[in-house]
Amino acid sequence: MPAEPIYDIAHLGHIEMLTNKPEASLDFFTRVFGLIESGRTDDSVYLRAFDDYEYHSLKLTAAKTTGIRHVAYRAASPEALERRVKAIEALGAGIGWRDADEAHGPAYRFHDPDGHEFEIYYETRRYQPGPDARPALKNQAHRTPNRAIAPRRLDHLNLLAKDVDAIRRFLPQALGSRVTEMIQLDDGALGGCWFTCNNKSYDVAYTRDMANGHGRFHHVTYAVDQREHILQASDIFLENGVHIETGPHKHAVQQTFFLYVWEPAGNRIELANAGARLILAPDWEPVVWTEAERRKGQAWGLKTIESFHTHGTPPVAEQ
Amino acid sequence: MPAEPIYDIAHLGHIEMLTNKPEASLDFFTRVFGLIESGRTDDSVYLRAFDDYEYHSLKLTAAKTTGIRHVAYRAASPEALERRVKAIEALGAGIGWRDADEAHGPAYRFHDPDGHEFEIYYETRRYQPGPDARPALKNQAHRTPNRAIAPRRLDHLNLLAKDVDAIRRFLPQALGSRVTEMIQLDDGALGGCWFTCNNKSYDVAYTRDMANGHGRFHHVTYAVDQREHILQASDIFLENGVHIETGPHKHAVQQTFFLYVWEPAGNRIELANAGARLILAPDWEPVVWTEAERRKGQAWGLKTIESFHTHGTPPVAEQ
Amino acid sequence: MPAEPIYDIAHLGHIEMLTNKPEASLDFFTRVFGLIESGRTDDSVYLRAFDDYEYHSLKLTAAKTTGIRHVAYRAASPEALERRVKAIEALGAGIGWRDADEAHGPAYRFHDPDGHEFEIYYETRRYQPGPDARPALKNQAHRTPNRAIAPRRLDHLNLLAKDVDAIRRFLPQALGSRVTEMIQLDDGALGGCWFTCNNKSYDVAYTRDMANGHGRFHHVTYAVDQREHILQASDIFLENGVHIETGPHKHAVQQTFFLYVWEPAGNRIELANAGARLILAPDWEPVVWTEAERRKGQAWGLKTIESFHTHGTPPVAEQ
Amino acid sequence: MPAEPIYDIAHLGHIEMLTNKPEASLDFFTRVFGLIESGRTDDSVYLRAFDDYEYHSLKLTAAKTTGIRHVAYRAASPEALERRVKAIEALGAGIGWRDADEAHGPAYRFHDPDGHEFEIYYETRRYQPGPDARPALKNQAHRTPNRAIAPRRLDHLNLLAKDVDAIRRFLPQALGSRVTEMIQLDDGALGGCWFTCNNKSYDVAYTRDMANGHGRFHHVTYAVDQREHILQASDIFLENGVHIETGPHKHAVQQTFFLYVWEPAGNRIELANAGARLILAPDWEPVVWTEAERRKGQAWGLKTIESFHTHGTPPVAEQ
Repeated sequence: MPAEPIYDIAHLGHIEMLTNKPEASLDFFTRVFGLIESGRTDDSVYLRAFDDYEYHSLKLTAAKTTGIRHVAYRAASPEALERRVKAIEALGAGIGWRDADEAHGPAYRFHDPDGHEFEIYYETRRYQPGPDARPALKNQAHRTPNRAIAPRRLDHLNLLAKDVDAIRRFLPQALGSRVTEMIQLDDGALGGCWFTCNNKSYDVAYTRDMANGHGRFHHVTYAVDQREHILQASDIFLENGVHIETGPHKHAVQQTFFLYVWEPAGNRIELANAGARLILAPDWEPVVWTEAERRKGQAWGLKTIESFHTHGTPPVAEQ
Repeated sequence: MPAEPIYDIAHLGHIEMLTNKPEASLDFFTRVFGLIESGRTDDSVYLRAFDDYEYHSLKLTAAKTTGIRHVAYRAASPEALERRVKAIEALGAGIGWRDADEAHGPAYRFHDPDGHEFEIYYETRRYQPGPDARPALKNQAHRTPNRAIAPRRLDHLNLLAKDVDAIRRFLPQALGSRVTEMIQLDDGALGGCWFTCNNKSYDVAYTRDMANGHGRFHHVTYAVDQREHILQASDIFLENGVHIETGPHKHAVQQTFFLYVWEPAGNRIELANAGARLILAPDWEPVVWTEAERRKGQAWGLKTIESFHTHGTPPVAEQ
Repeated sequence: MPAEPIYDIAHLGHIEMLTNKPEASLDFFTRVFGLIESGRTDDSVYLRAFDDYEYHSLKLTAAKTTGIRHVAYRAASPEALERRVKAIEALGAGIGWRDADEAHGPAYRFHDPDGHEFEIYYETRRYQPGPDARPALKNQAHRTPNRAIAPRRLDHLNLLAKDVDAIRRFLPQALGSRVTEMIQLDDGALGGCWFTCNNKSYDVAYTRDMANGHGRFHHVTYAVDQREHILQASDIFLENGVHIETGPHKHAVQQTFFLYVWEPAGNRIELANAGARLILAPDWEPVVWTEAERRKGQAWGLKTIESFHTHGTPPVAEQ
Repeated sequence: MPAEPIYDIAHLGHIEMLTNKPEASLDFFTRVFGLIESGRTDDSVYLRAFDDYEYHSLKLTAAKTTGIRHVAYRAASPEALERRVKAIEALGAGIGWRDADEAHGPAYRFHDPDGHEFEIYYETRRYQPGPDARPALKNQAHRTPNRAIAPRRLDHLNLLAKDVDAIRRFLPQALGSRVTEMIQLDDGALGGCWFTCNNKSYDVAYTRDMANGHGRFHHVTYAVDQREHILQASDIFLENGVHIETGPHKHAVQQTFFLYVWEPAGNRIELANAGARLILAPDWEPVVWTEAERRKGQAWGLKTIESFHTHGTPPVAEQ
């Protein structure tokens, strides 16, 4: 039976993505994908969508490989942050505190069971638009860009894990997340699990890593306001030679209208729209999908493309 | 400074709307507006949108007048319900408990400062689709209707109040709601105030009642998945002789894409779409609009129609 | 070099489709697909989209098999009809005149080189809406239905032919059609050819029949006003157990946004949207696609599904 | 009774617009409105939408005033051009031939009864995209811009005239245009008249000039693929301080989904979408609207804004 929602965690804050083609990746994210640069350090560029209220939602870091370095959630209050730290320490998953940086205050770091690094912070740096970025409507973080692709905000990410059941046990205890949907394989193990810490239907999904890696990344997703914007984006990706992996189409799981592309270094990026769907029920029962049901493909019959099951970053040698 | 969100209240559950033209109103809500009947008693019909997970979100009750009889919120847990009851009793606003009925468990009743009746409940009756209503995708409450107007879920309501400042003090204490936006009139009083108890940008708005009434109703809103669905709905309202009051257009406040119509008894009904906009920041600072700013009209310049300021239900004698 | 457009033919008028499951097919076209019945005879039901101005655009006829019995074009004037009859007789393709029936005046019949039967007529029966069908806006043939699937008008059809080059020579002479796009196979033959007799980018396409048949049918297409309507339709097909073959996606050829389903008897039906694309240039040069280009799949990378190349109606024994 | 369509004229080709704020106007059309520069001469810049196949659809010319200098239509063939010249000469409206320029071949000039200058040409300069402008799909003139506002093609224009009835008699004789809709005032005169020379529902509209001018301009319209694109454009105009005069909304006449703005010099510009609506009937009977019908406002009830009746370019002293 679902427990009462905890809500110590307010929302997914940002991810740090690694790229071994930093110039090409930055060009993709800013010129094609419509993110906006807030600032940069030696190795990293801070990026955000036009209505992300914080300094950044994507830290793009030059590296020798791809994938992600860390995932960050913002706590609901200083007290909520403390509660989460205690819970995580009790789980033996903690790494320790990291000092404030240009983007947010002190953050508590920990690992999930597959080795992905997470951090939680409360104090943050709000984005302050300069004169050229000030929106006409003051309830918006940044003016609406005149771009066919202009995501509104960070939506969720998808991580790979060898043992999704372990994640399912861990994340509700560590972050207070709820499970909203999951895929139960015929062998009894979970093939995928979708979690949320608020009213979005998910902010992180884990799917089984079929390769011999750990801490790997499947994709990050930005939300657009309307499905039509994803159709427009498809043309822009086509015009710019971006690899469109699959979509646009509608997922059966979570009903997300999706489009997946690969940025130049190979990290998978999604544009998505959830319509008016939210998880408002405090006692939402996880929706369980079987292998047989998933074999039907996506909502309108599209067969899931093979690379969607096999491609993650960083790449690993095939088993 | 904003306090930590409380989240004792999960979401707006339903409203009870009064109609003195019950047959015409029911015909509007089911044949034109796309709500679905769950059941009925002598004087009331229980209606819901296709993805409302509870038995109903609109109780349509035959009466000698119009407006609403009560507004109901669902608590996040039995404990959260108890906390809210204590808080409301401490405010001296409580009425007392009402027994369970066909739609949900025991509910605690209270009045807001303008005299609107509210109730809070936790135990509820989930909608159970029969064979003809079962959706193809099991993460949805009811099959998607083949209708040009098919709202997904109840979104919010708008009440009128003589003293909006009193409401602004009351609702955060009673329900733990946060204020997300407000209109500050030149005389210092609030002209409007938007509240939320979750990540939606608002679930109830109050605007100043210029007439000599109390406990009056401005509108109730259902959410559709895409803005285009509101454009389609406009044609359907036109074809069915429904009074379109204003829209479709985009509000400056909250950026909602809206369309307002009157059901046959005169209650105002809105279809709306918020795109991907959510209030995720736990420390969201209320956006304050001035009278001068509001005089600019809606987001894209539409002048607010006079009846929008004057028409509420039930009607009152002009002052 | 393109000749001056002829414009003797005003537009595609209707097709007669055969079904060996007449009740199920009629249920599909009216209850799910949103066509409207104008009338019926013993074996046929006359159907139309809400803004088709003639009595019908689809004659659905009970038969022992599937596919189509005839395709009908409306001439621009009585004189234009006479000119076409002479041209067709000169080609040796004529069958002769058919008397007026309940739907239109006398029609001249002929065969295309693959054996499909065509007819051309000028006098027609305009659809006259009764009180319940009268639109709110008088520049529309029938009121807008309150349906998620409500095609506006017949758009085009796709026929199969053993020798597409023969069709390419024939149709411009017979109907005055122009070729707007075509697929040139590596062996020099045409794999597909798109024709128009007006400003639409095509009203009939022919693609190579890989099976041992003749006079076969690939699909008929109705146009909706917006791409979003096709996304909505996808959900409705899913809810109603309709076989979605492929889509929604965007064709590279002609850039049509498409969705293909099979009606219960197996005839393929498309919903499509062309955006604002029209062929206005009087000297439009046919766009020629190579096999290599077509192997890239559809516009956004969707691989063309195998059945799209093999399934036609009526079915034929495999070679 | 409608005559057989003539089709000597293929389509509206371009207009020459005058601006007394050439830099600001050019900035509007290219940076905000999404037109693309093809080239320039001393006083003029040639602009086009991304799928306009000719060198330009808008010639923006620096001048001491605003409004338009000429309207150009492309003939269907050299012979069709000759036929039109003869017809126009017979009407006594001809001015004479103009030599070829950088944009198209020799053009025959004439005046309409209100003094607007028109020209007809056949030979034209097709737009040839350079490497950076080459589209991914070869059936398109120019790559799709990554812009929220990116019109596909020139759609139509609206001129003002003292005597719309005179225009109604003239244009079918001069261009072979058909009347598709019109407004009949209570005094028997025409208040507005919509004409087409092809399958678009109109390519030019004339409405009565209430001021003491002649040869004045009401607006020019570019078409976008989807209505949602017009909603997006509204935000972009808002962000860029562009005067939004009215819309987005749907016209009752012609059912066009519209948005009107003023470019910096005061010329009115429209973005529009017609959905799948076309005039395919060769014997289309003009739809006649009465004053009483027009008083109902636009399709969904929006009252027509006063400036829409009074503002034209160039401005004239009030009577």
